[in-house]
Amino acid sequence: MAKKSAKKAARKKAAKRGLKKSVYFFGGGKADGDGSQKALLGGKGANLSEMSLIGLPVPAGMTITTEVCTYYYANNKTYPKTLDSEIKANIAKIEKVMGKKFGDLNNPLLLSVRSGARESMPGMMDTILNLGINDEVVEALAAKTNNPKFAWDSYRRFLQMYGEVVMGAEQHANEHHDPYEVILDKAKDKAGVKDDSGLEEDDLRWVVAEFKKLIKKRSGENFPEDPMEQLYGAVNAVFNSWNNDRAKVYRAKYGIPAEWGTAVNVQAMVFGNTGPASGTGVAFTRDPATGENVFYGEYLIDAQGEDVVAGVRTPKQVAQMAKDLPKSHKELLKVRKVLEKHFRDVQDVEFTIEEGKLWMLQTRNGKRTGFAAVNIALDMVKERLITKEEAILRIPADDLSHLLAPIFDAAAEKKATKVGEGLPAGPGAATGKIYFTAETAVAAAAKGEKVILVRQATSPEDLRGMIAAEGILTTEGGASSHAALVARQMGKICVCGAHGMTIDYGKKRLSGNGVTLKEGDELSLNGFVGNVYAGAISTSESKVIQGLIEGKAAAKRSETYKKFTQLMGWADKLRTLGVRTNSDTPGQVETAVKFGAEGIGLTRTEHMFFEGNRIDAVRQMILAETEKDRAKALKKLLPYQKKDFVGIFTALQGRPATIRLLDPPLHEFIGTMTPAQIKDLAKKIKVTPAFIKGRIEALHEENPMLGHRGCRLGIVYPEITKMQATAILEAAVEVSKKTRKTVVPEIMVPLVSYAKELELQKAVIDEAAEEVREKHGLTKAQLKYQVGTMVEIPRAALTADEVAEHAEFFSFGTNDLTQTCLGLSRDDSSSFLPDYQDAEIVANNPFASLDQTGVGQLVEIGVQRGRKTVNDLKIGICGEHGGDPASVKFCHRTGLNYVSCSPFRIPVAKLAAAQAALEEKGQARGEIS
Amino acid sequence: MAKKSAKKAARKKAAKRGLKKSVYFFGGGKADGDGSQKALLGGKGANLSEMSLIGLPVPAGMTITTEVCTYYYANNKTYPKTLDSEIKANIAKIEKVMGKKFGDLNNPLLLSVRSGARESMPGMMDTILNLGINDEVVEALAAKTNNPKFAWDSYRRFLQMYGEVVMGAEQHANEHHDPYEVILDKAKDKAGVKDDSGLEEDDLRWVVAEFKKLIKKRSGENFPEDPMEQLYGAVNAVFNSWNNDRAKVYRAKYGIPAEWGTAVNVQAMVFGNTGPASGTGVAFTRDPATGENVFYGEYLIDAQGEDVVAGVRTPKQVAQMAKDLPKSHKELLKVRKVLEKHFRDVQDVEFTIEEGKLWMLQTRNGKRTGFAAVNIALDMVKERLITKEEAILRIPADDLSHLLAPIFDAAAEKKATKVGEGLPAGPGAATGKIYFTAETAVAAAAKGEKVILVRQATSPEDLRGMIAAEGILTTEGGASSHAALVARQMGKICVCGAHGMTIDYGKKRLSGNGVTLKEGDELSLNGFVGNVYAGAISTSESKVIQGLIEGKAAAKRSETYKKFTQLMGWADKLRTLGVRTNSDTPGQVETAVKFGAEGIGLTRTEHMFFEGNRIDAVRQMILAETEKDRAKALKKLLPYQKKDFVGIFTALQGRPATIRLLDPPLHEFIGTMTPAQIKDLAKKIKVTPAFIKGRIEALHEENPMLGHRGCRLGIVYPEITKMQATAILEAAVEVSKKTRKTVVPEIMVPLVSYAKELELQKAVIDEAAEEVREKHGLTKAQLKYQVGTMVEIPRAALTADEVAEHAEFFSFGTNDLTQTCLGLSRDDSSSFLPDYQDAEIVANNPFASLDQTGVGQLVEIGVQRGRKTVNDLKIGICGEHGGDPASVKFCHRTGLNYVSCSPFRIPVAKLAAAQAALEEKGQARGEIS
Repeated sequence: MAKKSAKKAARKKAAKRGLKKSVYFFGGGKADGDGSQKALLGGKGANLSEMSLIGLPVPAGMTITTEVCTYYYANNKTYPKTLDSEIKANIAKIEKVMGKKFGDLNNPLLLSVRSGARESMPGMMDTILNLGINDEVVEALAAKTNNPKFAWDSYRRFLQMYGEVVMGAEQHANEHHDPYEVILDKAKDKAGVKDDSGLEEDDLRWVVAEFKKLIKKRSGENFPEDPMEQLYGAVNAVFNSWNNDRAKVYRAKYGIPAEWGTAVNVQAMVFGNTGPASGTGVAFTRDPATGENVFYGEYLIDAQGEDVVAGVRTPKQVAQMAKDLPKSHKELLKVRKVLEKHFRDVQDVEFTIEEGKLWMLQTRNGKRTGFAAVNIALDMVKERLITKEEAILRIPADDLSHLLAPIFDAAAEKKATKVGEGLPAGPGAATGKIYFTAETAVAAAAKGEKVILVRQATSPEDLRGMIAAEGILTTEGGASSHAALVARQMGKICVCGAHGMTIDYGKKRLSGNGVTLKEGDELSLNGFVGNVYAGAISTSESKVIQGLIEGKAAAKRSETYKKFTQLMGWADKLRTLGVRTNSDTPGQVETAVKFGAEGIGLTRTEHMFFEGNRIDAVRQMILAETEKDRAKALKKLLPYQKKDFVGIFTALQGRPATIRLLDPPLHEFIGTMTPAQIKDLAKKIKVTPAFIKGRIEALHEENPMLGHRGCRLGIVYPEITKMQATAILEAAVEVSKKTRKTVVPEIMVPLVSYAKELELQKAVIDEAAEEVREKHGLTKAQLKYQVGTMVEIPRAALTADEVAEHAEFFSFGTNDLTQTCLGLSRDDSSSFLPDYQDAEIVANNPFASLDQTGVGQLVEIGVQRGRKTVNDLKIGICGEHGGDPASVKFCHRTGLNYVSCSPFRIPVAKLAAAQAALEEKGQARGEIS
Repeated sequence: MAKKSAKKAARKKAAKRGLKKSVYFFGGGKADGDGSQKALLGGKGANLSEMSLIGLPVPAGMTITTEVCTYYYANNKTYPKTLDSEIKANIAKIEKVMGKKFGDLNNPLLLSVRSGARESMPGMMDTILNLGINDEVVEALAAKTNNPKFAWDSYRRFLQMYGEVVMGAEQHANEHHDPYEVILDKAKDKAGVKDDSGLEEDDLRWVVAEFKKLIKKRSGENFPEDPMEQLYGAVNAVFNSWNNDRAKVYRAKYGIPAEWGTAVNVQAMVFGNTGPASGTGVAFTRDPATGENVFYGEYLIDAQGEDVVAGVRTPKQVAQMAKDLPKSHKELLKVRKVLEKHFRDVQDVEFTIEEGKLWMLQTRNGKRTGFAAVNIALDMVKERLITKEEAILRIPADDLSHLLAPIFDAAAEKKATKVGEGLPAGPGAATGKIYFTAETAVAAAAKGEKVILVRQATSPEDLRGMIAAEGILTTEGGASSHAALVARQMGKICVCGAHGMTIDYGKKRLSGNGVTLKEGDELSLNGFVGNVYAGAISTSESKVIQGLIEGKAAAKRSETYKKFTQLMGWADKLRTLGVRTNSDTPGQVETAVKFGAEGIGLTRTEHMFFEGNRIDAVRQMILAETEKDRAKALKKLLPYQKKDFVGIFTALQGRPATIRLLDPPLHEFIGTMTPAQIKDLAKKIKVTPAFIKGRIEALHEENPMLGHRGCRLGIVYPEITKMQATAILEAAVEVSKKTRKTVVPEIMVPLVSYAKELELQKAVIDEAAEEVREKHGLTKAQLKYQVGTMVEIPRAALTADEVAEHAEFFSFGTNDLTQTCLGLSRDDSSSFLPDYQDAEIVANNPFASLDQTGVGQLVEIGVQRGRKTVNDLKIGICGEHGGDPASVKFCHRTGLNYVSCSPFRIPVAKLAAAQAALEEKGQARGEIS
């Protein structure tokens, strides 16, 4: 961090000194910058330069760098001295290339002003089009184009954007209608037309006059007629928008640092709305939902860019252009090929056709679903566009989970009635009945119904309902909302912030797209893309699950399955970090092994304690007042535990297994008993119910997370440790005999803070081993095991050199290590973590993605000091972070031997591990978008 | 730690190699070692050597070093090869000096074998006397001394000790009587005498024979007749006793490392039981209870050492010797002077007079009460025996608290009936009525009775009773027991482990020393020395409190007051570490200032929230659903808070004050409401009781310590921070005006884990300040304040460089930092911490004395990184550790600016700070006993 803040200071200093070059030109087949300069020019600016350099038709323009943005904020919102002259010089260049002049009354140049950060932040910042028009220029434009309606329409569009964005003349919070739209509606009424496009020159002249009045009234200032003044106003507005609330929230979600800043792109306007020979569109070079190798996009004739997105007119499929604008279509197909060949990835482009001439306004790597990411990457390898390594690096590891989630029947989904759209916050396809409260959701699920929980927003009180539901839909909140956060943690299918939909809790109604649904009606959620449908859509298991886990031959023939296994094969060859699984039952272990788990990183023995009749023996053990009574109860548990471990060792087929000794506070096993259960148990174990109640009360803790749990139980009751160790080792003996392969269990002591704790627990385990050896007549070589510890308390990490004296392995328990290092309870933090993400205090939920700055230091310290004592100490991680790509990469960099995660996260961890290995090698560095 | 374990390894290696010199001789005015070699020779051995060197009459002997003990344990209980020859050579030397021969049949030398660790561990390890007697030697001894009764009595004593300690022929657990005593009783019956001393030669011959049979029967082995074999048996036993349970517990209590090992002292026996010209005694060179400069001790004529301690015969005061044994008395008075002059401290000596000749058997620095420690140290400065600096270093800082505790009327205590004696586990004098359960104690206290809680042992369920009681008495458990632990934490007067007393819970009876008391009877505890008295003894405030806090002139004339203030004056001059106070009310602040507090290190603003009607407004604030409602409730609270701060600033008279913003989870303010209170509040603030209950439930947290508290409240509800900042600053303005001295409050943001949290909270505080300045028309210079943070989360310490960018000061909240670094809840840990101390996992309660190895690292990291960003960052500590001497010294070494503690711990902290400064300077190094 010291380094980081030093860098920051240096940057600030440099920004104060003023910068050498603030503005970069592009256009006419030339450019000052290129596509590699995304940090300086922003993604849009860099790619415009690149497109210009490779000869694509880009309207000329200039990029004001992100460094100017940094300077702007570091210097009280002022600019470097040289900026003005640079802008003017570049306008001259633009004028030359475009053959028009800014503010000219013969052949006026109009400009667009757009933001463009290093990473795309769609819709987050402001855009101004048609800049440079005033009362005189509009007339010149009308004359030059011989199209007064177009000229005045451009003017009114400009005024509307400029008034709102630059001059702050916007809709008030208490207004029901946009005042600009009110004026437009009035004009349409007066003209007796229905659409904006029905307005003629005179109507538009009236609109322009009214807009100006509106701006004056709301902002207190006159609309600036001077084009240069307009330009500076727009540039200021873009820079200011870097710190508006939407942008901040977006950055928080995607972990984009505020220091990056945005660039501003000032570009010659081209017009798709000059008549039937013009048009505008957006397209992907391949299908971003499926990855299919088809040109995928939409366009509108006689329209400006915003019209396509606004959805007033229904755009046409890009294939249709072949008929409407055959020349441009042909040209566009050529551009598609050039772009993919050059950028070697799917491109998401914007284009405009002005009087038959094609102009490319933007290209960027296209966002895609997990399916598409895998399909495209693997197809491109086949097409020899990219290498295997690039393919590996290009697929966001997290997206692999899409391939494992249930999917809709594609034909059925196409036919379904879409009633809304939100953020895809939890991948998968879910269908169920609508319920509006946690209580009703839980009750319906208890009756066996499939439930979709629908809420404006969720809060911690909704948790039970969220757990009970197949899917979750919220109409408010974004990617950092409670619903998104929790869905991610629970692996629930979720669409959040479907703003177009409304809920009436009183009437139990959900409405969207003109359709109203009531409680109990069927609803379907596509959590891959965020679509919401009325009615049920038939779903099926992912092909990968069908093929890999269920072994269905048909699924194995599917493209998805084949590509998935191919990808996993590549990842396995490239990665050096091991991937184990956190699994507690033989069934889970079998699944994990099918996913390619190389062993168990964490088995929680206490989960077994709840099954069947065992809980009685567990409770009897807890209630025992003497060591003798406790031993009696433990003796009952021993065969159960042994059976569990036999199952697990058998399922592992020789792979290693780390088994954690009893961890949770004892209160967890008895605190939830009902009066009837207490009475029942009292009779069974011959004590009074009052005695049991008393023990429950005595075991209650204020902060059980920090209480009598983990190895603290084993220190006070060594007989528990001994029973568990005996069960593990007896199972190892049995399975070793049966399979004729030696099982070497790794026994893990949890919650160690003092080296001495481990030393004492190890002595108990060694004693148990001695007894098992004696019983079966085995030598030391015939019954091997390892004793290690979970490093999950800061003190253990800080004193890892001492702890390692008694450890044969370490496993970082990053869940608890995060709780203690951050002083933050996972269970309780969801009430304020959304506020923390909004305030940009945390970029990610620290329980989902490791806090590398804080907790990461403890991991690094633990690794260094542990290996100082034991040079080749085996070290893993078994917190939930083991399935988070960023955390997996951190583990690789920190020198861990393996990560461990839940079975379904294994593919993600493997891919991330392969990426980490590639990144380390420096292969294809800089290729990661 | 790396260093520590390296040292340990080196030591182990050295031990394996074998050592150069294993045995050190002393006696006849010579010695191989000296008093400085306590680590090698143990305290007893080093001082025997020293006494011999300065010409005092010490029976000759040898010390087998502590390194042999370490070797013994490192090498599977074997000895260095050279040991045997060294022992034999030294026996020859002893024989020469004493003029007797070991195992000789003319003039036999008998030996004592005693343990002697670096630090005294009284009664913890085993001792063997009269070693070297066998069936032949006993006859020789009888002949030589012409005292067969003495010879045979010595033999039977030796057999009893040797049989029990070395051969394990001891009382079985299910036996009601000691089998050796049974034999003695039989002999007395047969002889028709009452006392052991009534047994004559023949009786004793019978006893010896019976003892031998007993030993054979119980151990399966014959008693060894060979004196050398006896000697090795005894040496083994002493080394083995280093790891017996009693010794382990003792070490855990006093933080003595197991690696130190014990030495073994083998010394020529001298006999105080050879007749009326012989005797034995123990004495202190000054009164160890009061410190008075008088010779203080007891002796018995015709007795061996153990008889004085056993209490069968009542010893006489040492002054009486002037009559009984005038020559020896005179000699002893001379020895007293020589010892004090040489050792420059009070000595605790054992002596024996054999046929008129005085022998010194032991000297060591005398243990003493806090009163005595201060008196003796200051008297010795006056007597020019030691320097001021030595006096400062010599007084255990913790003992200063004795001078502040209530005391018994001395005359009344002398007359009171002593009914028992235990460990002094909480200093002070308490009188009250006996109650045997927490429930009855609480009920009696509620009725206004003063209560002494009497239990065999306490457990967490007794906490309420302990809080309600004036004093606590337990009959079981030692210094690491729950009672001792909690008493120390709560500052309760406590005597624990009064083993001679018995409790009958059924009959509600307490018995001791032949007196039986019942529930409700008066009992008095002297927690300074551990005495228990029947009946009430009048108590009074300590003279220091009377003089310093209450300003009573008479108390100021007392010796205690004068010495206390003189000592504090010296400490203030020597120390460089500041000492502030943790105080929440103006009254507390006044007391703290009188104790010499240099400011406030911590004011907990939430404590004020519970007073009077405020809690209603607080609850209204918590229950508010909108920011507006919350602001309304906060507005009500503002004047209350302001008034609090006005009082505190006024009481401080210009000293600095660190004020912490709201810290606890909101649930704490509403979670304890009764149904009636809920109903009442609901009416007042116009909501339904159900709504309040719902909010209470919603605010409930699994682990509130790690939940929505500290600055997390201020992040989600900035208006709370703003109200508190406004109240603080308004108060500062008011008091500044009134006193014409600028008050500069230090506003402390709690529970920061991310630098950004502090940045955001600072912005809110700055905003409040701007508004206060504007309201009062003040410039920045006229209203100054500092914003800092409490470092109490590991992440804050690890990222202190980032946090310091927004901080003007740090204060380590070591309570919470201990909880998080150790993953240990303070409230819940008392259920297993005693087990942890017994198992030697922790030496001290980490909430009482800072865990320097673990938590200390975070403090060091925090200081280093914080000061890397802000060179002269002001850093303090405000956990309870601020009043613990070892922790205070750590803070000095780590470069903190100040510690802060509760008012009554200020003297302790100041003295410890002075000691730390002296230790750093290296002055008088090695003088600390």
